[in-house]
Amino acid sequence: MLPGVGVFGTGSTARVLVPLLKAEGFEVHALWGRSEEEACCLAKELGIPFHTSQSDDVLLHQDVDLVCIYIPPSMTRQIAVKALGIGKNVVCEKAATAVDSFKMVTAARYYPQLLSVMGNTLRFLPAFVAMRQLLVEGYVGELQVCDVRVYGPSLLDQSYGWTCEELMGGGGLHTVGSAIIDLLSYLTGARAHRVHGLLRTFVQQNGLIRGIRRVTSDDFCFFQMLMGGTGSGSVCCTVTLNFNMPGSFVHEVMVVGSTGRLVARGTELYGQRNGSKGEELLLDDSGWVGPEVKEMPLPHLRGLSSMVKALRQSFQAHEERRSWARGPVAMAPTFEDGLYVQTVVEAVKRSSCSGEWECVEIMSQEPDPNHNLCEALQRNKN
Amino acid sequence: MLPGVGVFGTGSTARVLVPLLKAEGFEVHALWGRSEEEACCLAKELGIPFHTSQSDDVLLHQDVDLVCIYIPPSMTRQIAVKALGIGKNVVCEKAATAVDSFKMVTAARYYPQLLSVMGNTLRFLPAFVAMRQLLVEGYVGELQVCDVRVYGPSLLDQSYGWTCEELMGGGGLHTVGSAIIDLLSYLTGARAHRVHGLLRTFVQQNGLIRGIRRVTSDDFCFFQMLMGGTGSGSVCCTVTLNFNMPGSFVHEVMVVGSTGRLVARGTELYGQRNGSKGEELLLDDSGWVGPEVKEMPLPHLRGLSSMVKALRQSFQAHEERRSWARGPVAMAPTFEDGLYVQTVVEAVKRSSCSGEWECVEIMSQEPDPNHNLCEALQRNKN
Repeated sequence: MLPGVGVFGTGSTARVLVPLLKAEGFEVHALWGRSEEEACCLAKELGIPFHTSQSDDVLLHQDVDLVCIYIPPSMTRQIAVKALGIGKNVVCEKAATAVDSFKMVTAARYYPQLLSVMGNTLRFLPAFVAMRQLLVEGYVGELQVCDVRVYGPSLLDQSYGWTCEELMGGGGLHTVGSAIIDLLSYLTGARAHRVHGLLRTFVQQNGLIRGIRRVTSDDFCFFQMLMGGTGSGSVCCTVTLNFNMPGSFVHEVMVVGSTGRLVARGTELYGQRNGSKGEELLLDDSGWVGPEVKEMPLPHLRGLSSMVKALRQSFQAHEERRSWARGPVAMAPTFEDGLYVQTVVEAVKRSSCSGEWECVEIMSQEPDPNHNLCEALQRNKN
Repeated sequence: MLPGVGVFGTGSTARVLVPLLKAEGFEVHALWGRSEEEACCLAKELGIPFHTSQSDDVLLHQDVDLVCIYIPPSMTRQIAVKALGIGKNVVCEKAATAVDSFKMVTAARYYPQLLSVMGNTLRFLPAFVAMRQLLVEGYVGELQVCDVRVYGPSLLDQSYGWTCEELMGGGGLHTVGSAIIDLLSYLTGARAHRVHGLLRTFVQQNGLIRGIRRVTSDDFCFFQMLMGGTGSGSVCCTVTLNFNMPGSFVHEVMVVGSTGRLVARGTELYGQRNGSKGEELLLDDSGWVGPEVKEMPLPHLRGLSSMVKALRQSFQAHEERRSWARGPVAMAPTFEDGLYVQTVVEAVKRSSCSGEWECVEIMSQEPDPNHNLCEALQRNKN
């Protein structure tokens, strides 16, 4: 039996998600927005019976068994951890910091019977599911290089907000790069151990963001990850993100190995073995019927749709509306994956400052929140 | 009046160059090969009256006024410097080291009345000539990012030789990367001041290179260059070279600026201004008639052809067969440019070892050849 859903967020993802949930038979009972007005407006538009700007009203809502959190990164941890504490299943987007991600991991470990998955959607895209399968089957031989590029228009909101602020989780690396980092660990079955990167904010002001306000989040980011084995045995991943290209949308993921290569362009998958003369189309995604959404690139939209289908299968398997089967969502990123991704994001940022390769070290215990205070007190004593 | 030409080399470039020279009206009088046999064979094939394996026989040949040197990098400096000393005009490919390049610069400075240009051919490709012009005219606004990728099959020769050896000037970075480094400085009108890179040799042995022999030259390389102004004002260039992709040839140079972008795919140029909905074809190169050569990618072939045309115009301007006009070859890379390129190549290699950003510092005096010896003697004294 399908659980009742509560949705946090009124942005473009939430707007797309609700119709997808409904199409799969989920009932969306409650919507949370940052302001009463935003929530009311979108609830009316999407036909959601209850709306609020008080998070507890959704979390404690008796018909809500699954909470979908698509809100600014800096607010995600608080809602996600609370939802698990109240006993709700959670699908959410990334948090703003590794510390927040770690707190989410701790909560998820504490409630293993509850579903807790990251809403990074690229893993579910059929092109990447097929790519992973072909990698496992040895289509490219020994994997050598992954090369990813995403080009598109600005990620900034119309008005000044978190998307402009690096520390609030804005920027291409955090927003789009994190989905790519997750995808590459899914495809390669390995994790990055060293990263190097360069971030830039080419557009610091525009017609809407001016005066004393300045964009601090990156609109260009280039990073490399060494994954899997150390030394020359590792896979080299290079990722180029450029969001200064209005009117374009390029989403290309290429993996090159000793005997061939695979490349996903948008939602289609191509391959070429070393012996052959040309590329073959391995997955034509033209059969896709679903909403076209201007603000959301097709790979993410298509991935989100597939994830919702997987959620339906997971919950359908059980009679009880809060129970779910692990199988259909086994490929979804866990909160542990979310912590890994956030750790890589922060290592790339560090590298961009230091100019050096940075190690990816996953947090294993929460840093002492009084650490800075203690240091200050120590200094005062001397 | 056109000068008589002597050609050094029997490789694929020399094989392509001779017909191009003849087509423009140059007479090729002499051919040098490493072995008598190689020289004889190719001279017969191309209809060159004189062949030899003694370099002086070409350099001192009385009908030879222009020497074209397309031989392994480690031999280039010696022939080029000697040719200038004898009073011949020189077109040549890159040397193996910055020290060699510096010696060539010294010779070129000493004989400013002689033509001395690097045979890097991409500058002459019409797509890049047009790209540079559009950059100057402000098509892309303020330049932010250059993104280059070259993918193709292995660069290794059929048998073990210099192409396998990093120290002999083999590898993707040295062979193809150097043409890209030169091109980017031509396009941006700036030079790299800091670089970062990673080199890999994924294929260390193959069916022909085995046993105790091992390839040391890179078959995968990516590097970044910060060019022009320092700090956030600099242009970020990223270059990805992958020669583990048999059956492919991708040659893409993209420049992105504040108001638009330009991209050369192969020999064609496309552009898109930020306001517009799609790319426009700015230069269709389908009118190109010339030889198709399997071993040489079209952009290089087309560029080589344009360079030979420019040489013809340069020499035609004068009655005396050794004199030439600067105008038509003004855009050609000088030996100073060759030294810059070699310096960047070596900085990228250093960076790949150190893992750090490396400064590009152009040699201003020749290092003392006895430096290491002196140090050893010093150590022994203590």
